This record gives sequence, structure tokens and C-alpha cells, in this order.
Amino acid sequence: MSTLFLRTLREDPAEAEVPSHRLLVRAGYIRRVAPGGYAWLPLGRLVLDQVTRVVREEMIAIGVQEVSFPALLPREPYQRSGRWDEYGSEIFRLKDRRGADHLLGPTHEEMFTGLVRDLYSSYKDYPVSLFQVQWKFRDEARPRAGLLRGREFLMKDGYSFDLDDDGLAASYAGYRAAYQRIFERLGVEVRIVNATAGAMGGSASEEFLAPTPVGEDTFAACECGYAANIEAVTTPIPDSPNSRTPGESQVLDTPDTPTIDSLVDVLNTRRAGGHDGWQAADTLKNIVLTVDGELLIIGVPGDREVDLRRVEAALYPATVALFDDFGSRPDLVRGYLGPQGELKARYLVDPRVVPGSAWVTGANEPGRHAIDVVCGRDFTPDGTIEAVVVRTGDPCPRCAGPLELRRGVEVGHVFQLGRRYSDVFGLDALGPDGRPLRVTMGSYGIGLSRVLATVVEQHHDENGICWPTSVAPADVHLVGLGDREAVASLAGELERSGLRVLFDDRTGVSAGVRFADAELIGVPVVVVAGRRLAEGYVEVRERVGGTREDVAVGALAEAVRARLR
Amino acid sequence: MSTLFLRTLREDPAEAEVPSHRLLVRAGYIRRVAPGGYAWLPLGRLVLDQVTRVVREEMIAIGVQEVSFPALLPREPYQRSGRWDEYGSEIFRLKDRRGADHLLGPTHEEMFTGLVRDLYSSYKDYPVSLFQVQWKFRDEARPRAGLLRGREFLMKDGYSFDLDDDGLAASYAGYRAAYQRIFERLGVEVRIVNATAGAMGGSASEEFLAPTPVGEDTFAACECGYAANIEAVTTPIPDSPNSRTPGESQVLDTPDTPTIDSLVDVLNTRRAGGHDGWQAADTLKNIVLTVDGELLIIGVPGDREVDLRRVEAALYPATVALFDDFGSRPDLVRGYLGPQGELKARYLVDPRVVPGSAWVTGANEPGRHAIDVVCGRDFTPDGTIEAVVVRTGDPCPRCAGPLELRRGVEVGHVFQLGRRYSDVFGLDALGPDGRPLRVTMGSYGIGLSRVLATVVEQHHDENGICWPTSVAPADVHLVGLGDREAVASLAGELERSGLRVLFDDRTGVSAGVRFADAELIGVPVVVVAGRRLAEGYVEVRERVGGTREDVAVGALAEAVRARLR
Repeated sequence: MSTLFLRTLREDPAEAEVPSHRLLVRAGYIRRVAPGGYAWLPLGRLVLDQVTRVVREEMIAIGVQEVSFPALLPREPYQRSGRWDEYGSEIFRLKDRRGADHLLGPTHEEMFTGLVRDLYSSYKDYPVSLFQVQWKFRDEARPRAGLLRGREFLMKDGYSFDLDDDGLAASYAGYRAAYQRIFERLGVEVRIVNATAGAMGGSASEEFLAPTPVGEDTFAACECGYAANIEAVTTPIPDSPNSRTPGESQVLDTPDTPTIDSLVDVLNTRRAGGHDGWQAADTLKNIVLTVDGELLIIGVPGDREVDLRRVEAALYPATVALFDDFGSRPDLVRGYLGPQGELKARYLVDPRVVPGSAWVTGANEPGRHAIDVVCGRDFTPDGTIEAVVVRTGDPCPRCAGPLELRRGVEVGHVFQLGRRYSDVFGLDALGPDGRPLRVTMGSYGIGLSRVLATVVEQHHDENGICWPTSVAPADVHLVGLGDREAVASLAGELERSGLRVLFDDRTGVSAGVRFADAELIGVPVVVVAGRRLAEGYVEVRERVGGTREDVAVGALAEAVRARLR
Repeated sequence: MSTLFLRTLREDPAEAEVPSHRLLVRAGYIRRVAPGGYAWLPLGRLVLDQVTRVVREEMIAIGVQEVSFPALLPREPYQRSGRWDEYGSEIFRLKDRRGADHLLGPTHEEMFTGLVRDLYSSYKDYPVSLFQVQWKFRDEARPRAGLLRGREFLMKDGYSFDLDDDGLAASYAGYRAAYQRIFERLGVEVRIVNATAGAMGGSASEEFLAPTPVGEDTFAACECGYAANIEAVTTPIPDSPNSRTPGESQVLDTPDTPTIDSLVDVLNTRRAGGHDGWQAADTLKNIVLTVDGELLIIGVPGDREVDLRRVEAALYPATVALFDDFGSRPDLVRGYLGPQGELKARYLVDPRVVPGSAWVTGANEPGRHAIDVVCGRDFTPDGTIEAVVVRTGDPCPRCAGPLELRRGVEVGHVFQLGRRYSDVFGLDALGPDGRPLRVTMGSYGIGLSRVLATVVEQHHDENGICWPTSVAPADVHLVGLGDREAVASLAGELERSGLRVLFDDRTGVSAGVRFADAELIGVPVVVVAGRRLAEGYVEVRERVGGTREDVAVGALAEAVRARLR
């Protein structure tokens, strides 16, 4: 440590918002050098190498082969797949000196598909599975949270290529199990949640979310074990459509009811339909959207807000926007829209709007609403859609128990792309009968630098980082307080025994500062070689738990090993 | 090999211009996926990892510490150092979604200087030396020659920080010696040549050039051991100015002498000055340039061409251009310019134009030249400049022997930057007396992917690559022709003995193709397990030299090891 390129900080860096960012900077692992860009100092490189090593080992163990692609990619394949447009401002784009468009590749489905097509031609070549470890770039609107959301981050992306759906399912299961082993080895607690595929396309898809309060992703979880990200939560269909039997539909004058609440108040005051138990959940709110330029109206219970991200996920890959050009469509009476009569556009409803359910909704005339408008009698939707904001206490789709909303960091993602990319690039294998078989693909990612930060989020205390042994920059942190030569000789012995030693040989730094640094840096076992070294004893401290014990020098290596296990 | 993601090619790829490109693609190490962009296949990753490992070991051995910087960098530090403008179209530039300028860093002097300034403050912290291994980007006008000049390439860049010139000299010597060990271990023959610093700035600078016919750099070398790149060659001053004693300067009418040759013909025909031995080397050619917008005239012997790259190197960092606006300067008589009389601009001469030497030059009047114009008598230059094209046979500056011009690939570069960057960023250390010391820096680079290609340029034959053991993707290439189970068991034994085995377990591929693949792929030792395996014998072939010998299975591992040494 007397020569290590390291400076620990006592104060939190001003810009650091989350514990991992604060601690990794303070303990001298990383340093911010640009917006969303970090330099990795020597200790930081060590822990990042540890994470990478574990991931690489588990990839090789399931037979995935390592390759490397350029990060700077030509536009053409991404234009063909549609992602050049889909990615919008999320990716970095640039022109070369000849004016040709390029991107800094976010993920490489297009390139891997092209490479396999280039090398392989026969069914005998398959299955094959490839991965790379690469620094990737994303033009984050607001780079924040240190390594959790940087503009340049290390990622392992893997791709499987199979001849049929069973093969894809087997590849997917292999990666999924490898990911579980990886996170277990790295000490990262994860929940595997159902996910929609987002901009990646495809069908089956799961995310590995690491629960932590600073996570940017919200997921729904139930005590029964169900977990899904918000886009993928499904709504169980309610048993009984209504608590009361609706009568004939009636139109009422309802002036000055600009909000659901004011409408409900008016209905209760007037005892509309003969009762005063009206609630927001009895009303049907109709939202007008454009989907790839076509009108779509969505009906949801009035006590619910529409979650546009869920709508987008449900309608992927279409482009969804709120419609606001009511001037051009006088038949759409803003604020008083209802689905009864002839439908004005495609009409989808929340799954709670079941056949037989009765609703208060707009009467398609200014200032008027209709009550007892019954689904299946007075209107017939074109289908259902998961469109509303998921709330704590909503019923679990598996067991109907109450859902809980939790925050997590997405550390891994596995999904079955199917034939989206092989269709675009014509990736076929010549089958045994001489006919082409279209290859089916999976895509599997782990954010390595993000995982590292997540380890810190899940393993720290008020004094610093508490690394799991698998990620720690060293096995043992040796603080030498006694005779310099004797301590140096002890450091050498520990190293020769195969332990990785971080040796604090600094002079002119107080013991208190050195102990504080050891806690901040977070190596699992701290050995203090002080006065009793002359008698042949040192103190062994565990970073987690804080136990301290004097150990004879002759038994030290084994004592350290025992604590690492 | 039955599952390895590999396809060897019998034909050369159309776009491949040099042996390393042809062979690395044909043997399945790399694949072109974009202009100047290559995917590294599994075998390619192995050899690149080997090169990286050797470089990393030698860096650590001299106490250099590894860090990592982002590749995507903000404009500001490069604007401050002046390199944002200097790099012109050679670098990739891009804007983020907020419109802020960025570059893909070519080298990281600015960033390392800022980081050290950020962490270190006292003289006690120094010296320190840091390196990183990073994929870098350069917007090559014409990406060619495969890995020798790609747009994305792996580089090791290192930076030293010292308190004084002696410290810098020691750091420089340390890197220089480490680079010699690296190239020796990798089997790359190099010549260390004096170099000018080019766009990097600074003083002492040497390049490691690997001689090969496909190299893009030309360097001058002498049997005495002297070597320099063309920009850095110096011209020894000739002993005697002239073979004859010049008379008084005379002006002659010389119509229709647009070229040096036609002028020399006229002089000899007329026996000007009383003799007919005039040669082009007796004439003084005056070239008008602009240097950062100011006029500069350079006088060189008429048998020499001006090498603008050498002029630029001599005048670095000024911008040099040929002057062509003679209309605006009627005093500069185009084609008949001479230095005699009042100088019209700053005037520098080739070192061969020594005091006392006599020249034929323009008379500053259309259609007239002057003879016996003597340097120091009839004109006085402002200084000398290395401006002319270096030719084979030019005198060596060290021993005056004939120089030879050779081609090489620049695989490494070491130079003493001095205080260029520490001045720009104010990198000081607080000295023992409390006064700031300005830090002095060195910068040291090795192109790892380029080195890999250079290994192939220097180690191949008509059948394929001949890897040195240190770089080879495996120690032994096992071709199994006999009993499958026995061969697989042999492969296992070799691996357990610690050898890295590339096992050709393919079926349905002829023995001829498999031998050809082994030669193409280029592992140093090939073991053929054929019919005699049942008797306990295999054939051991050396890739280089082609020796073949039957070896008992029990002695195989040791026999392979002996050949690897």
C-alpha cells in the first residue's frame, strides 16, 4: 500500500447518490473522470477481474465459446433489423471521415447472427453458443448512481443458436442455471422475474433482479414465490363482475364533472340509479392513443391510471403516443367518451372489464354520462390489454394473494429471441433432408460492472465495503504495526501459501487511519501484526461480524483460509 | 475441434492484402465484420490473450500498475491540450444526446495526467507509473492490412510520472528494457529507431519497428547499428564544401530551363564558369512554404526532393503547406528564386549547404540564373533544416557508412513527453521544501493486436502460421486418426500433464485436410495418433522445420515439452 496507486477518502464525493458509488470512490476502487465515465484504479481492476473470471468460468462450463466483436459497428445490419431506428437517442451514433453512419453497439444480436451465418451452414454444426466480454456504451439521459447506470460499462453478452424450439429451451435453461450459479458465487441475491422483451424482441424472457432500495427497476413479488417486472404482471380476472345487478343503461346530465371524483360525487348526491355507493372503480375511463399512427381507445376502471410503459410493452414493437388532436375528430367527445354504440376506433379494455360488468362512462355528448353501461350488452371490446399501473396489494396472478412492489437492479437478462434475427438475416442450416432449417436464437446478458456495484449495495455497512471472498481484491489485508522486517516476512509467507495479500506497509499513517482504511476497503479477513508478533502471535479480524482472535503465526494461513470458507 | 467455432478456408479472402491478414482469416482466428473491424474467433481470442498476458507480466515486473479508463471521453481536456484540433479527422468524434462533444480516445495522456493530479499531491507519492489495456479507435482513411491497421485495435498504453529529468530517464529506460523483453518473448524481431515525437509532443522518443516487407513505416539503418525513422535521420555535414574553387558570382541568361536537368544541360553546353562538369547537385533549389501562415523558404541541393513529412517533423507543431500564391508576391520570381541579396523571407537550408559552398541558383529575374553563389559570402541562411528525402546510400550520421532503407511495422513507441501535459494541467507535487515541483512524464505504447499480426508476418510459411510457443493458441495439436477412445484418453493425459491441447477429434474429414489445417493453424508441435497408437507410439511433428519422429506414448508429454523449449 505504500506504493499502490490508491487514495482513500474520508468524505463522501458530492455527486455520489448511492452507497456503492460512495464507497467504491471513497475506498479507491474507481474515480469519476467524465459524466457517467469512471477510471478503474488498481483495486477496482482487481475486483472487476474477479467478477469477469467467475462469469467466464461459468460460461465455459456450459460450453459457451468466447469471441470478441468490435464496439464500433456499421449502421447497415442495425438498419435491417430495425434497431437503428428503435434505439432512438439511447445509443451513441457517429460518422466516419467518409460520412458513413456507425453506432457504438449496445448489444450484438445482428453481428453474431451474421457471423454464425458466415461460418456455419449445416445442421451438423448446431447447436452453438458464443459470448463476449466487452465495454459497451449507452447514451444515458441522466447517468447516475455510479456504476449502476454508467455510459460505458462492461458486459458479458451471450447468444445461443439452435435448430428447434426444444434446443432453444435447453440452451435457455443452461444459461439460466449458469446465471444462478454466477450470482450465488458472487454473493448477489437475485429474484428471477418474468419480463417482457422490450426492444430486444422475442418471446420468453426473464430478468435477474437484485433487490436493493436503490434499484431503478420495480418488480412485483408475492409470498407464493411469484415475481415479475411491472410490464409483465398479469391481472387475474375477477370472479363476479358487479356487486349489484345493473338496470337499463341511462344517460344523465352531468355538467361540471371534469374529474372522476367530481363525477362520483354528483352520482352519489343524486342517488343515480337509486343508490349512493358509487366509487371511482365503477367508472370506465377511456383513453385515446395512437399506435403506429392508428387510433386505439383503451377502457380502464376510473380508479386506475394508465401506465404507458405497460401499454408499450403489450403492443411492442409499435410506437405508442397519447392522442391529442381532438379538433380533427369531433366524433370523439373529449371527457365524455364511451364505448357504447358504434365503436369509433379499435377498443381494448383492462382485464377487469369482464363481460357482464356495468360501468359509468361518457355518453359521447358534452356534459353527459351514462350509467349501467354493460360490457357485452351495451358494448363489445376488441380484446383486453394490461394497461394500468400495478399497485401494492393487487392480486397475485398465481395465488391471488397481495402483491408487493419492490425495487431491484437488473443484473442479468435471459431471453428466447426465437427467429426474429435469423429471419432478418436469413440464418438457415441445411437440414439432413437437404431442406433449410431456420435457426432459433437466445440472448443472454450480464452487466459486469453493474454486478460489481450491486455486490457493494448488498454487502456493506456504515464503515465500508464487506466483499464476499469471490470478489474481494485480496484474501487478507495485513496491517503491519510491529517490526517492519518481521511483518514483511510474514506478508511473504502468506503470499507463498497462495493467499492474495493486501499489505499495508505504510509509515507515517496512524493505526486508526489504517484500521479505518481496512474496513473501508473491505477485504474479508484483516490480520493485525502488532506488539505480539515478537511472541509469534497476530490478531485475526473478520470484516463481517467483527470477531477478533489472536492466532499463532504458524497457524495463520490456515486460520485465514478457514475464515474465507 | 468437432465443436470449436472454427472454419478454415482453402482460399485467400479477397480483401486480404498481406500474409498476416490472409492467414489469420484462413486459419479461423479473425473474421472481418466491418471496414477495419474484425471479430475475434475463439482461437483468435486465445492468441490475443497470450500477447496481452506477456505484456501485462512485464509491466507488472517493472512496477507499473494497471488501471482502466473509459474510451468515450469528453472534449474539454483534449481541447486544453490542443489535441482536439491537432488530431483532425484521424479520431472519431461524436455528440451525446445533449449535444456535448466527445471523442473516442486515441491515447490518454490528458486523462492520466488529470487522474494523477486528482490523487497525488506530495513528492513522497512519486514516482508512479500506470498502464491500461484498452480497445482504441482511429478513423483510418483506408483501413488496410487487416490487424496491422484497423479502426479498432487493442493497445497497452503506459504513462510514467517523475519529479525530475533523471527520474524520467530511469522510467524511460525501464519501459524500454521491458519492451525489449516483451518482443523477445513474443518472438518479434525489432529495431529500435530514433523517432520524432509527431503529434505526441516532447523530446526523446524511440520506436520499436518490426522489419517486414509489408510494413508501412520506412526506416534508415546502417551496419554500424544506427537506426532511425525517416523523420529523425540527420545529415552529416560534408567535409569539403566544393570540389572546385568558385569565382565571383555571375548572372547568366538561361531561357527555357524549366527543370534542373535542362539548366544543367545548358550550363555544360556553354561551359559556364569555364567547365562542363555541372551536376544537379551543384544547383540550389528554393522551395517556398507557409508555416502557420508565415512564409518560409528552404534551399536544398537540386538533386534532392523535399520530404514534407520531414519538414513537418522538424517544424512540429506548426502547420506546413506549399506556398502557391505567387501572384501576391511579385518579388518572389517563380522558378528563378535565389537567396542572394536581401532575403525575402525566413530562409533555412539543407545541412549540405555549408558555409563556403558554391551554388547555381535563380537570379531573382525571369529567365536568369546565377553561378558561384557562395553560402556565407553571397547569402547567409537563418539556419539549417532536415528537409530532403532520405535515400539508400546516404551517409550514416554515426559512422558515415551507407544507409539502407527498410520497411517495418511500428509495434511499440516510447517517449519522454517531458512537461507538455503537466504544464497544461498544472500537475505539481509539493516538494520537501514546500515548493511545487512540476512533474515530468513519459508515454509508452504497444499495439497488442498489431503485434499479433506482426508475429504472423515474421513467422509463417506457404502452408500457414508458425506460432512461437509464447503466442500459440495451444502447445500441441493432436490429430486423432486411430481408435477414437484411445485418442481421447491420450488428449486427456496431455492436458493433465499441463499442456494446452488443440484436439482434432473431427470425423468425416480426410487426414489430408486435417494435416493441412494443422499447418495452417500453426501450433508448434503436432502429434499424429494413428495406426501405431495401438502399439503405444505416436508421431511427433515440429511445425517449423517439419521434423517427424515416432515417440512412445509414455514419453510424449516430455517430448512435446522438449520441442517447445
